[in-house]
Amino acid sequence: MAPHDVQNQPDHRRIPIQKVGVKNIKYPIIVLDKKNKIQHTIATFNMYVGLPHQFKGTHMSRFVEILNDYRQGIDMRNLSDVLTKMKTSLNAESAHVEIEFPYFIEKTAPVSKAASLMEYTCRFIGSMEGDEKAKLTVGIDVPVTTLCPCSKSISDKGAHNQRSLVSVRLRIKKFFWIEDIIVLIEESASAPVYALLKRKDEKFLTEQAYENPLFVEDIVRTIAEKLNADGNVTWFSVESENMESIHNHNAYAMVLKNGRRE
Amino acid sequence: MAPHDVQNQPDHRRIPIQKVGVKNIKYPIIVLDKKNKIQHTIATFNMYVGLPHQFKGTHMSRFVEILNDYRQGIDMRNLSDVLTKMKTSLNAESAHVEIEFPYFIEKTAPVSKAASLMEYTCRFIGSMEGDEKAKLTVGIDVPVTTLCPCSKSISDKGAHNQRSLVSVRLRIKKFFWIEDIIVLIEESASAPVYALLKRKDEKFLTEQAYENPLFVEDIVRTIAEKLNADGNVTWFSVESENMESIHNHNAYAMVLKNGRRE
Amino acid sequence: MAPHDVQNQPDHRRIPIQKVGVKNIKYPIIVLDKKNKIQHTIATFNMYVGLPHQFKGTHMSRFVEILNDYRQGIDMRNLSDVLTKMKTSLNAESAHVEIEFPYFIEKTAPVSKAASLMEYTCRFIGSMEGDEKAKLTVGIDVPVTTLCPCSKSISDKGAHNQRSLVSVRLRIKKFFWIEDIIVLIEESASAPVYALLKRKDEKFLTEQAYENPLFVEDIVRTIAEKLNADGNVTWFSVESENMESIHNHNAYAMVLKNGRRE
Amino acid sequence: MAPHDVQNQPDHRRIPIQKVGVKNIKYPIIVLDKKNKIQHTIATFNMYVGLPHQFKGTHMSRFVEILNDYRQGIDMRNLSDVLTKMKTSLNAESAHVEIEFPYFIEKTAPVSKAASLMEYTCRFIGSMEGDEKAKLTVGIDVPVTTLCPCSKSISDKGAHNQRSLVSVRLRIKKFFWIEDIIVLIEESASAPVYALLKRKDEKFLTEQAYENPLFVEDIVRTIAEKLNADGNVTWFSVESENMESIHNHNAYAMVLKNGRRE
Repeated sequence: MAPHDVQNQPDHRRIPIQKVGVKNIKYPIIVLDKKNKIQHTIATFNMYVGLPHQFKGTHMSRFVEILNDYRQGIDMRNLSDVLTKMKTSLNAESAHVEIEFPYFIEKTAPVSKAASLMEYTCRFIGSMEGDEKAKLTVGIDVPVTTLCPCSKSISDKGAHNQRSLVSVRLRIKKFFWIEDIIVLIEESASAPVYALLKRKDEKFLTEQAYENPLFVEDIVRTIAEKLNADGNVTWFSVESENMESIHNHNAYAMVLKNGRRE
Repeated sequence: MAPHDVQNQPDHRRIPIQKVGVKNIKYPIIVLDKKNKIQHTIATFNMYVGLPHQFKGTHMSRFVEILNDYRQGIDMRNLSDVLTKMKTSLNAESAHVEIEFPYFIEKTAPVSKAASLMEYTCRFIGSMEGDEKAKLTVGIDVPVTTLCPCSKSISDKGAHNQRSLVSVRLRIKKFFWIEDIIVLIEESASAPVYALLKRKDEKFLTEQAYENPLFVEDIVRTIAEKLNADGNVTWFSVESENMESIHNHNAYAMVLKNGRRE
Repeated sequence: MAPHDVQNQPDHRRIPIQKVGVKNIKYPIIVLDKKNKIQHTIATFNMYVGLPHQFKGTHMSRFVEILNDYRQGIDMRNLSDVLTKMKTSLNAESAHVEIEFPYFIEKTAPVSKAASLMEYTCRFIGSMEGDEKAKLTVGIDVPVTTLCPCSKSISDKGAHNQRSLVSVRLRIKKFFWIEDIIVLIEESASAPVYALLKRKDEKFLTEQAYENPLFVEDIVRTIAEKLNADGNVTWFSVESENMESIHNHNAYAMVLKNGRRE
Repeated sequence: MAPHDVQNQPDHRRIPIQKVGVKNIKYPIIVLDKKNKIQHTIATFNMYVGLPHQFKGTHMSRFVEILNDYRQGIDMRNLSDVLTKMKTSLNAESAHVEIEFPYFIEKTAPVSKAASLMEYTCRFIGSMEGDEKAKLTVGIDVPVTTLCPCSKSISDKGAHNQRSLVSVRLRIKKFFWIEDIIVLIEESASAPVYALLKRKDEKFLTEQAYENPLFVEDIVRTIAEKLNADGNVTWFSVESENMESIHNHNAYAMVLKNGRRE
C-alpha cells in the first residue's frame, strides 16, 4: 500500500456501508425525447455504491468520471450500464443512482392551439445488487388543476380549485415514453395546466375543471386504476399534493400498488 | 497589537465594506403579541455592520453575544437599541439587522367559529447610519385566496381561484400591531384563508371569493390605497404572488408608495 | 346521507388509500426539554390516515382539531395518543404523523465557556396500524465539523475540512433524551460546531479537528457502532452529508442497522 | 370594448403598478458560450411591465409568447430587444426581466489535468424605462474555498476552511464573457473548487488554500479592487457567504462600488 492511500486501508469495525458517494452534483445531460429524439437538460445526481465492511473508504472522483462518460445520453435503457460501470470502477457489490431533471414537452392550448413548453420534473432511480438485474424506478411530477367536489356541491356558485402536484413512481419491465404517462395523469385531473393560454382557453379550462370535480383521494385512485391496468408497470406509487386555495397547507393522498412499499 | 489579533490589522486597499457579519443564524426569541402579550417564536437573523476601509476584519462572535442579550424580547421599539449595541460593541459607524420569524394568530372560522392558529411570516429590518435615528421596515406575508375576474366573466360556471401570497413592507413612524395590518390585507382579498374550516365555512368562503373576484393588479392596488391613507406609514411596498391554478407559474404585481424605492 | 356529504359517499373502485390528510401545516407546540423541562418551538406537521377502499373521502378539518388539542405538549410518550385519536376521530384503521421542529440546546464553548444556543432539527414519526402498538421513529440532524484524512495525509500543511450534517433516525423501545444522542454524535465528529466561539475556542477546535480526521464513511460507522451497542435502539439509520470545501457537491454515506430498511 | 375584456377596463384608483407579470416560469433556452459557441440551459424567468394607473390589467399570456420567440438565443446583446418587445406587445412604458440559469464551464484539475464541468449560476437582469436605453445587470455566483487567517494564525496545526459562495452583480457598458469574470473571482479565493479532483490535485489545493488565507472581508475587497480597475464595469456589488466549518451559520460580507446602491 502506498503511504498515502488512506482510502484503501482496512477497517476493523465490521460495519458495511449501504451507500457512499457523491450527492447533489449538477451536470448537463442529453435525454431521449419522443417527438424531437433528444432533449438537452440539466440533472442533479446522487451516485452511491455499497462499501463492504473491510474497506475504509471509496474513491469519490470516479463517480464524476462516470458522469462525464455518460452525459451525452442517459436513458432508461442504459442506466443499467451506468450501474455496472459504477460497480466495476469502484470494486463495489452494489450501486445506486438517482437522477432528477426538468423535462419539457410542447403542448397546444385546448382552443386557441397556441403552443408553449410545459415543464415536468422526472427522476430515474436505479439500483444494482451483486449480479442481479438492475432495478429501475421512474418518477414523474405533473402539475394539474383540481376542483373540490364538496365546495362545488355545497356552494351556490363557484368552487375552490387549486394547482396540485401529482407525483408517480413506476417500476417497469421495459422502456416507455414519459410523454405517455404524463398524458395519462393530465387526463385524470380536473383539468391540465399550460404555460400559455389565451382567453378562450381560460374559459374552456375553467368550465372543464368545474365539470370534473375531484378530491385528492379521487385523483390518486383514478391514476392508480389506470396504472393497475398497465401490464408494463410492476409497481407504482401515486401521490397528489393539492395547494388548497382556502388553506395555507396542502391536502395530500398516496396510493401504493397493492398497498406494498417499493 | 497582539501577534494573533489578525482582525485588528490595518488594511491598505481603501475599500470600506458596507455589510459584514453573520447570516442565517436561527435563534428562539420572544416577541410582542396583541392578544396574549408575548409570543415565543424562532427567528432567522442576519446581522451586519459597516467596516471602515482601514480595518481588516470585524469580530463575528460579538453579533451572537448581542443576540443572546436580546432574545427575551425583540420588538419594533427596542430594535433601535439592538442597532446601537451592534455599533458600540463592534466599533462600527453603521449597523443593519434583518429578523424573520413565523407569527401565529388565533382566527375563528367565519360561520362555525371554530378556532385555529394561522401562520404569518414577519420581518423586522433595521438600519442605523452614524448618529442618525434608526430606520425600521416591517415586513408581513399573508396568504389569501384570489379569484380571477376574467375567468368568472367569460365562463358559464365557476372561476379559477388560488392561494396567493401578499407581502407588504412598511416604513413607519411609530409602533403598530402586526395584527391590524393582517386584517387590512385579509379584507382586501377575494377571501381570507384559515387553518381550520368546517363544511359551512367552506361554503361561505367559496361564495365570498366568487363574489369578490380580483386580479393580482387589483389586490395590490386595494392594499396600496388603504396604506396611502394611513398617516403612520411613510413608505411601503405591496406585492402579491398568485399561484395560479391554471398555470405552473405565478402571476405577480408590485406597487411602491409614490413609485419610490425604499 | 345528507345531500352534500360528499366525502361520505361510497367509492366503487376498490382501491384503498394508504395515506390521506394534511401536509406541511405549521403550528407552535411545546416539547420536553431535559434541562428546562419544556421548550417552545414551531413544528411542521404531516398527518395522514389510511382510507378503506369503500369510502370516498376523509375529513380534513379533524386533523387540525387534533393538532389544536395536543399543541401544549407533544412528546415521544404521548404520540401514541395522538395516533389513537386520529384513528378514532377519522374512523380509520391506520394513522401516520410526521412532526419536524427546530430544537435548541445551550452549549458552552470549549475554552472560554461562553454560552450560546445551538439549533438542531428533530423529527417524530409515528405510525399505528389496526390494533397494533404505535411505531415511533425519532430523527435528529446534527451539524458538525469533519476534516479529511486523505487531505491531511498527503498535504505538507493543512487539510480541507467542512461543515457536515449528520442525520440519524432511531426506532426505540422507550423514552430517551434527544440531548444524549446529540452528545453521542458530536463526540463522533472531527469537532462539534457552536453558535458562539471566542478566539481561544477557535484555536482549540481547529486543532481538535486536525487531530481527528474522519472520512464521511468513518463518521457514520463510528456512530453506528455506538448505536449498535445501545439496547434501547431497535433500528437506526445514520447518514452524513459533508459540504466539501474543495467541491461544489457533497460527500455522502449511509448505514442501516444490520443493513435493514426501516 | 368586448363585454368580457375585463383587463382592458379602466381603473379609477390612480395607482400605477411598477411591476406586473409572470414569475418563476422555467423555460429551456440557448445562451452564448465562449468556447463552444452555444450552450443549452434551463432558465427561470420573471417578466414584468409597468402598468399605468388608468388600466385595470395586463395580458399575462403575451409574456410567454415573447419567451417562446426568444428561447433559441438570449444574451446580453439582445436583452434590449426582449425588453422593447415586452413594452410594445403589452403597450407598456417600462419593462423588466430577470433570467437565472445554470452555466457550465469545463475546467481542468490543477495537477492531473482531469477535465470536468463546473456549474455556476448566472443572472441577466434588464430594465427599460420609457425611451431610455436598457439597463443591464449581470449576476454570477461562483463557489470557492476560503481558509480562515485567524484560525491559521492562532492554531499549531491546520486551519478551518469551507465552501463559500461569491456573488457579483455587474452593470456594464458592453458585452463581456462570463468566463472571464469567473476566472477573476476564482483567482481571488483561497482556492477554486472543481467537480473532479484526483489525489494529487487535492494535495495541491489543500496547500494552495493554506498558503492563501482570506477573511470574508478580504475576498470581497480583493474582487472589488479588480472590478474597480475594469473600465467596462460601471457599477458592481460583491458578496461572499462563507459556510463556516466551525459554525452552523455563515459569515457574510458585501461591497458596493463607491458604496452606492444600484
